[in-house]
Amino acid sequence: MNTTRIARLLASACVFILGAASTRADEGMWPITEVAKIDLAARGVQVAAKDIFNPEGLGLVNGVVQLTGCTGSFVSDRGLILTNHHCAFGAIQDASTKERDYLALGFLARSLEDEIPARGYTARITESYRDVSAEVLAAVEPSMSPAERTKAVEKKSKEIVAAAEKANPGLRAEVAEMFAGKTYLLFLYTYLKDIRLVYAPPLGIGNFGGEEDNWVWPRHTGDFSFMRAYVGPDGRSADYAPGNMPYRPRVFLKVAAEGVREGDAIMIPGYPGRTFRHMTSHYLRFEEEVRMPAVVAWYDEQIGFMEEMGAADRAVALILAGRIKGLANTTKNYKGKLLGMKRLGLTAKRRAEEAELGTFIAADPKRREAYAGLLDRIGRVYEEQAATASREFLLSNLRSHVVPLAVAHTLVEAAIERGKPDLERESAYMDRNFSQTRTRLLERLKDFHAPTDRRFMRRLLERAGELPAGQRLAALDALFPNGYEPLALDVFMERLFGAARLDTEDAVNAALSMTPEKLAALGDPLLDLARALYPDHLRVREAERARKGALDGLLPLLVEVKRQFLEKSFIPDANSTLRLTFGRIRGYEPRDGVFYKPITTLDGVAEKATGRDPFDAPEALLDLYKKKDFGRFAPEGFKSVPTCVLYDADTTGGNSGSPVLNGRGELVGVNFDRAFEATINDYAWSPDYSRSIAVDIRYVLWVTQKIGQADRLLEEMNITP
Amino acid sequence: MNTTRIARLLASACVFILGAASTRADEGMWPITEVAKIDLAARGVQVAAKDIFNPEGLGLVNGVVQLTGCTGSFVSDRGLILTNHHCAFGAIQDASTKERDYLALGFLARSLEDEIPARGYTARITESYRDVSAEVLAAVEPSMSPAERTKAVEKKSKEIVAAAEKANPGLRAEVAEMFAGKTYLLFLYTYLKDIRLVYAPPLGIGNFGGEEDNWVWPRHTGDFSFMRAYVGPDGRSADYAPGNMPYRPRVFLKVAAEGVREGDAIMIPGYPGRTFRHMTSHYLRFEEEVRMPAVVAWYDEQIGFMEEMGAADRAVALILAGRIKGLANTTKNYKGKLLGMKRLGLTAKRRAEEAELGTFIAADPKRREAYAGLLDRIGRVYEEQAATASREFLLSNLRSHVVPLAVAHTLVEAAIERGKPDLERESAYMDRNFSQTRTRLLERLKDFHAPTDRRFMRRLLERAGELPAGQRLAALDALFPNGYEPLALDVFMERLFGAARLDTEDAVNAALSMTPEKLAALGDPLLDLARALYPDHLRVREAERARKGALDGLLPLLVEVKRQFLEKSFIPDANSTLRLTFGRIRGYEPRDGVFYKPITTLDGVAEKATGRDPFDAPEALLDLYKKKDFGRFAPEGFKSVPTCVLYDADTTGGNSGSPVLNGRGELVGVNFDRAFEATINDYAWSPDYSRSIAVDIRYVLWVTQKIGQADRLLEEMNITP
Repeated sequence: MNTTRIARLLASACVFILGAASTRADEGMWPITEVAKIDLAARGVQVAAKDIFNPEGLGLVNGVVQLTGCTGSFVSDRGLILTNHHCAFGAIQDASTKERDYLALGFLARSLEDEIPARGYTARITESYRDVSAEVLAAVEPSMSPAERTKAVEKKSKEIVAAAEKANPGLRAEVAEMFAGKTYLLFLYTYLKDIRLVYAPPLGIGNFGGEEDNWVWPRHTGDFSFMRAYVGPDGRSADYAPGNMPYRPRVFLKVAAEGVREGDAIMIPGYPGRTFRHMTSHYLRFEEEVRMPAVVAWYDEQIGFMEEMGAADRAVALILAGRIKGLANTTKNYKGKLLGMKRLGLTAKRRAEEAELGTFIAADPKRREAYAGLLDRIGRVYEEQAATASREFLLSNLRSHVVPLAVAHTLVEAAIERGKPDLERESAYMDRNFSQTRTRLLERLKDFHAPTDRRFMRRLLERAGELPAGQRLAALDALFPNGYEPLALDVFMERLFGAARLDTEDAVNAALSMTPEKLAALGDPLLDLARALYPDHLRVREAERARKGALDGLLPLLVEVKRQFLEKSFIPDANSTLRLTFGRIRGYEPRDGVFYKPITTLDGVAEKATGRDPFDAPEALLDLYKKKDFGRFAPEGFKSVPTCVLYDADTTGGNSGSPVLNGRGELVGVNFDRAFEATINDYAWSPDYSRSIAVDIRYVLWVTQKIGQADRLLEEMNITP
Repeated sequence: MNTTRIARLLASACVFILGAASTRADEGMWPITEVAKIDLAARGVQVAAKDIFNPEGLGLVNGVVQLTGCTGSFVSDRGLILTNHHCAFGAIQDASTKERDYLALGFLARSLEDEIPARGYTARITESYRDVSAEVLAAVEPSMSPAERTKAVEKKSKEIVAAAEKANPGLRAEVAEMFAGKTYLLFLYTYLKDIRLVYAPPLGIGNFGGEEDNWVWPRHTGDFSFMRAYVGPDGRSADYAPGNMPYRPRVFLKVAAEGVREGDAIMIPGYPGRTFRHMTSHYLRFEEEVRMPAVVAWYDEQIGFMEEMGAADRAVALILAGRIKGLANTTKNYKGKLLGMKRLGLTAKRRAEEAELGTFIAADPKRREAYAGLLDRIGRVYEEQAATASREFLLSNLRSHVVPLAVAHTLVEAAIERGKPDLERESAYMDRNFSQTRTRLLERLKDFHAPTDRRFMRRLLERAGELPAGQRLAALDALFPNGYEPLALDVFMERLFGAARLDTEDAVNAALSMTPEKLAALGDPLLDLARALYPDHLRVREAERARKGALDGLLPLLVEVKRQFLEKSFIPDANSTLRLTFGRIRGYEPRDGVFYKPITTLDGVAEKATGRDPFDAPEALLDLYKKKDFGRFAPEGFKSVPTCVLYDADTTGGNSGSPVLNGRGELVGVNFDRAFEATINDYAWSPDYSRSIAVDIRYVLWVTQKIGQADRLLEEMNITP
């Protein structure tokens, strides 16, 4: 599955750079700025460019939303959104209790009134864009230090956003960096804030195969759910209120119940998160040797512990489900990437390409003058990052992987930041974002599980004790003057968790409006620890800005010289803005002698079903299978209902929930994952291995009708069962 | 891989029964008695039946040999035999030392003089057969007890064999039971006893993938070796002597260097060991619930220990290699079978078929009279077997899994048996077999590794202490009057191994000709233990004969009524006699969404190669691959050399080394394994899953030429490189 939330947190220290070479028809996440340049007919698409995206009017993409870290699409005129089960997961988990286990059993709202608010969920629709590169870059002066440069770009971007939102009341603005240090676009979005849960299949369908099948083809997961966007009675975006009405989208997608066949052309609009296709070998080496192995080891440890906790108690399992899912998704993705990088010798290959580029630069005096030493300078940025990676990794985990300390950190920071003028604050604490920050914080609180968070805190302290000289965390060392001995840790942990009080929504809400002084006066030991660590966090942030500033000065030169060398233009890496990608329903050969077919069926669900998690397909489903009760959803040539489809379009995290459209622009599937061999996708594209996975619309409809008994949704989508 | 030696030891308690229904063109291991009835043209075979097997003259099968537990084929007029690497494994292991590691590095005899005698290896060529059912069954009288019945059949068979060998000097005779209790054939064989090792590729080719890839498709193992049969200067079968000459076979197979393509017809002659296709549900249940799980657990324990031992010391690894390989082969096969039985619900399915048969029997008074209660009576035989299974399993392991005790057991038994008239002895001790028994015993001695055998002995004693009341081994209990306490075991083990002396070839050879009294006078503690356990072994043998006698009385009735019910005839289960099977080069779908192609290539070797065991392809091979130095062995349509091929012919253990012939009867591959889904093959045939695996002749020739530098062998086979 492709979720970006976790990935984003982790990637925050890295910058995104450069575009992917658009040499192949299949590669490329095209920005909507480029839609007119795409040869749609050659890609099997019959829809005209202006009917996909129309700067002067409406196009298909107006029916597509960015749904928090995912994508979704409107499939009715009443704001019904089709997305992935794993995208709605947080909302389903929130609504579930041990007694009312919607996660395990599935959920159907019998009527609009029963639809459950999904707190923290938002939906954005791209309305327009404008190039603001000149304006942004005018703020940068040659005399600036790298960190100052980053801050200047950030400040200017905030000003542009503020002006745009003032000029377009009700819309939301974002400045997106397309090419690092070089190109910036201002996007305007419709921004919906009342999203509700409508239908989710049982976990044994929506997450069938669980972590075992995650990032795996052939797949048999019914990874879909329905949500709905609501607006105020005046039709304008509003926070949740009981009197809100279903949103009336200006465009919604037609659902094509007949689905696809092997070889069919498809097109996917969506909001892919991040790719790193043209990063230098230095970045790849850092990822391969430093960051990813550290993440995998620590996440696997956390997952192991949480699984033990959950195995003993279903209520605890429900609390920890989301945390496990997020970590497991990342660690398996990284394992796939590490394997792929090793198999392809990716870093060495990139290094060889850079050596050729170096030769090209050296061969011409003018080029020498402009670009000599460029790659070495980029390399040094990563060398510096590697030198402090252990310390930064530990700090980042202290900030985010122990729930009560993460809450305390946000409270400490909020108190400081909220005291500044709005435009000078860190983005999360600006007035326009603070309500969402508050909601996320309260959501985060629900993840708290004392034995788990105590265990993780203790392990992080132990690791702090093992940091090498020069990377030590003085704030922690001061707490353990005689070393991080077990007894000292016991005493400290008892004090830290024993007296802490900020574990209720009321307490956290109250603390969110306190000044730093008032907060300090609470004497909460977790707040005290967060405050003691805060200067270290600030230093890391400054270092990150310095690295980004340095790269922003270097990477535009790299793009420039690579364009000359390769004699082609690039399209920018994914950056959570609206993109389009194209492909065909197509299998692949994962290894010698094996061919993966591009469409799976219910036969495979029955084959894999064990009755036990993660292959615990519901009895009702297996009964229908045995009875061959497939309705109209097992088309000619199939022995049962198609479940998932595979295609060679170019997707990444954030594309989860993206509609898969046929050549006529009709919805035939919901994108939710990539094949294991395609996790490497974020770094390098391969026509042989890059394959993404959708749940087949025929499975969506069959499950919704036969398992969910949700005929009202089929009717709403104009599907005759 | 398919070896039968271990399987035979284990299966010795079971009887083979019934034939497989010949409803499908692909199913069936046809006895040569049936060759004339096969529709060869429909199977894509252009060779006439009489050119395959000709009772009055010569056919292709005269070029095929039973090579100890495997099959092989003559591929030159000088007795060159092509078989599997795993069939020649014992010979290669014997010839290897830590300093001269032919197992790891491969072996090539530069000339005839350098070919290494493979002690214990024999080659048999089927010359003719005759039905002796009437003669054998005339020895059975209704008044006999089941055990007496078995003994009468055994005795009569020995007499027939003795008469046949007397009448045909130089040939070897065997009576084979085709349908249990019903049909018996006398086969006459040419019997060659001087077999030598000619060429074996390095382990990283011949056993590439090791246990990990064993029973797995797609496969990339170069599982082949060349051996050669020698005869006395007079051209007659002879024991090894330096002056022996290469055997001149009357028929040898043409090697077709061009290989096969997907869909091509193939035909496989060979000596499949045992199948159990039409056994009753009682047998399947015993296998599934009692025997196989016990074997898997105990073998896995042994393998784990031996791998630890070998990891520390390559010399020890060489000693234990064969034992590990044998056990691992069985345990993985059983795991595949257990999985397949569970997946197919095989036992329940068989029970349902039997219920239908029961209804058929009940529906007619005559049938009721003849067959009522038949299935229940068969069931009771297995119930009795299950009741004493733990005890018998332990005894059988004491007899065979602790090398010095196994040697002692044979010595004790030999002394007793050799004192009887020849025809009254157990088969292994008859004059005609005793020399081979001696050789095997001396070979077995080489497996001895004190720390390993002591460990296994101790574990078996511990398990003897855990036997339930009623199944106890009194002979052992008497040795531990105060229970099997650790200290008592220590003392006993020290005495058992400390004073034992029968660990040299000379000592064992000498002991083999002693009387029971002389042997007893040696006072060897291992011999004493073997003697104490001997009466228990005799009781087990008696019980086995009683069970076989009971089934022999019942199973012919079952065959009879099944023929009436199903209205079809059966062909007998495999029984190590010459069979023919047919099929096509054909992939399969192991699970939904996956298609396995039927021909793999060197690409896959490079993909799998890790440089470490078991994927340690030689550098030389990978270099040739990189240079695309494929000679003439990468035909059109292939990017590199084909390595292995897959087909839907019907094979089992014992077919290892069988030649795979094209429709013209030319050799295109060497059969060596089945796909994991096809391990269930021994119990049930499936056109969807039953697939066998050969090393492709193109890989054989390419490796022999390019890695082995053995141009002389290619010339000998009339192959132009």
